[in-house]
Amino acid sequence: MTTLVTGIGELVTNDPALGPGPLGLIPDAAVVVADGAVAWAGPRSAAPGADRRVDLDGRAVVPGFVDSHAHLVFAGDRAGEFAARMSGARYDGGGIGATVAATRAASDGQLRGRLHALVAEMRRQGTTTVEVKSGYGLTAADEARCLRLAAEVTPETTFLGAHVVPAEYAGRRADYLALVTGPMLDACAPHARWVDVFCEPASAHAFDGAEARAVLTAGAARGLDLRVHANQLSAGPGVQLAVELGAASADHCTHLSSADVDALGGAATVATLLPGVEFSTRSPYPDARRLLAAGATVALASDCNPGSCYTSSMAFCIALAVREMGMTPAEALWAATAGGAAALRRTDVGHLGPGARADLAVLDAPSYLHLAYRPGVPLVRALELPGDAPSDTAG
Amino acid sequence: MTTLVTGIGELVTNDPALGPGPLGLIPDAAVVVADGAVAWAGPRSAAPGADRRVDLDGRAVVPGFVDSHAHLVFAGDRAGEFAARMSGARYDGGGIGATVAATRAASDGQLRGRLHALVAEMRRQGTTTVEVKSGYGLTAADEARCLRLAAEVTPETTFLGAHVVPAEYAGRRADYLALVTGPMLDACAPHARWVDVFCEPASAHAFDGAEARAVLTAGAARGLDLRVHANQLSAGPGVQLAVELGAASADHCTHLSSADVDALGGAATVATLLPGVEFSTRSPYPDARRLLAAGATVALASDCNPGSCYTSSMAFCIALAVREMGMTPAEALWAATAGGAAALRRTDVGHLGPGARADLAVLDAPSYLHLAYRPGVPLVRALELPGDAPSDTAG
Repeated sequence: MTTLVTGIGELVTNDPALGPGPLGLIPDAAVVVADGAVAWAGPRSAAPGADRRVDLDGRAVVPGFVDSHAHLVFAGDRAGEFAARMSGARYDGGGIGATVAATRAASDGQLRGRLHALVAEMRRQGTTTVEVKSGYGLTAADEARCLRLAAEVTPETTFLGAHVVPAEYAGRRADYLALVTGPMLDACAPHARWVDVFCEPASAHAFDGAEARAVLTAGAARGLDLRVHANQLSAGPGVQLAVELGAASADHCTHLSSADVDALGGAATVATLLPGVEFSTRSPYPDARRLLAAGATVALASDCNPGSCYTSSMAFCIALAVREMGMTPAEALWAATAGGAAALRRTDVGHLGPGARADLAVLDAPSYLHLAYRPGVPLVRALELPGDAPSDTAG
Repeated sequence: MTTLVTGIGELVTNDPALGPGPLGLIPDAAVVVADGAVAWAGPRSAAPGADRRVDLDGRAVVPGFVDSHAHLVFAGDRAGEFAARMSGARYDGGGIGATVAATRAASDGQLRGRLHALVAEMRRQGTTTVEVKSGYGLTAADEARCLRLAAEVTPETTFLGAHVVPAEYAGRRADYLALVTGPMLDACAPHARWVDVFCEPASAHAFDGAEARAVLTAGAARGLDLRVHANQLSAGPGVQLAVELGAASADHCTHLSSADVDALGGAATVATLLPGVEFSTRSPYPDARRLLAAGATVALASDCNPGSCYTSSMAFCIALAVREMGMTPAEALWAATAGGAAALRRTDVGHLGPGARADLAVLDAPSYLHLAYRPGVPLVRALELPGDAPSDTAG
């Protein structure tokens, strides 16, 4: 079964071979989908035939968002903590303990219900690939359980036992590190593609450079690929460690030294910016322009989590990137799609060139510019083509 | 036909007689609706019977948003101007001319299509009352046409012939003012409840204090109530004029002197803040805390328009008010509901006490806090109760 998607007022392919600029923009375009993949993309006037036809009446189409950083397996509610923070309380990661307690107490069904609801919510907002971390279980059994559940909705599962040192290990950091790099990793590695660590010497709850290195090297030894929560609250060693160890992504990058920027500019490690966190913690935003000027590959992701940023909206992150970080609407959209794919080392998503997965996101607008021009408005959704193979976030 | 809406996890009534605080909050609540109005609101355990029952499964309910400032009758697209501004171009109101040209060239059907689509989009985001201004016609016939169309969707229609001096009157400001206060007002007054003026001496396109006074007094003489675009780009005379003339609202209030704040603190004139504008023009936000401390009544509205702010999301405005203006989530929600009603001098909307119009907005969340806690996520929608009288934004 082939489908001709036509009447596309503006098509963003992220394939420079198909149209001008990094976005590979095609006005008045069409896409042919076969077996869940893009078989052809180009001007409508040149479109081949297909078994059926879907007309989008001039709407813009962009690649489905690739949200490469999200924490979706949890229970509990921290709206009260959010309200307190907006009245002046600082964010230092300590509130994670509340989510850990609620997550441990929750049934599989409760965790699955929230997880699937959030993934569906994301898909309704145009996100077609999402990474999901553990990190609210913090026992071998609970971390493995969270990753088993995450694997039901995405192949991009990340072991984050090194999220914070849980309360019961207060004063026994070394013991917790031994657990994370030993039995917990053993229990989790079969369910995870990635290993991650909250590297943040400025927080007593998180992990310093040596501890982060231990976690990452242990994960790598078990065959996991690397990503790092780096330089969120201070200019710590996270970015340098990520680059040195060949991590796919250094996430947050809010506080960078010149050496950090230079390192990211010369590395394959993606700088993943999460401006929703700075919005929801009332913190200064990362300097995207400095990273772009240095040649770094920049991704945007939501960091959807109940503590520091409970948005699931990639369009909102794009609007923030444009307003607060000086990214152009084109740079922001690229970062939220192709950038996210680079951060997950995926070549099948984040673009709509031939062979790409047919993850089309449709805007109720004539141009991708509206994602930033119309902040907060639910304009974008994943296009459902009945009969095609489900994508990662179909759950 | 009476309807019992039950299973409300948290009900915001804005009626201090029904629950604690200005929000009149009731946990585990129910509402009885009869003939499109609230017949009863209170704890679920005390709810009376009704002909039918709708269960909201623990969702929060708030009064439908009252968006007291919007420009929804227009044609054309200014996404390109937005993108240019984000690259550094200043906003001074001059781009309005592009919308004027497109609006004049559009058919009634084209204008109606966009208007109805935007009102429907707002309703899907929880807005149940909206004010709609003219101001992109700027001839007697085009302004009257825009107001006739606006009156199809809301009783809150505002004559804004004094939006900018149109290009064909360059160098003939007095002639345009004579048109606005004479034949244009004659043509428009039958279709308008309100008269408004963009009072902004800092912009060559807008109107100074004397001109604004002439517009407002002419409108008042024709029986229109007053509202003023005041102090958006500079600390001009708009706020003082609004208070002196007894306007229902002074809108924007971005640049205020101490005397302006004092005047609003002691007046019935509502200070309507439009933080979406500051977001989308990358400008400093109004000082909401100073206004609240002075005792002013503060409203939040979207200012939805194609130039300075094309959001239609009141939830987004609430999130901005909390993040950028230091309002508590409760203050922001009150301002977006009861505050908007005060700015429109309406007592039947903006609250859910007995007798209020049954404009219930339902959140896919357990608490109103999630409006700010989950920025950009489409959580809130107007509750549709089939068979009830349509509300203002049913069109």
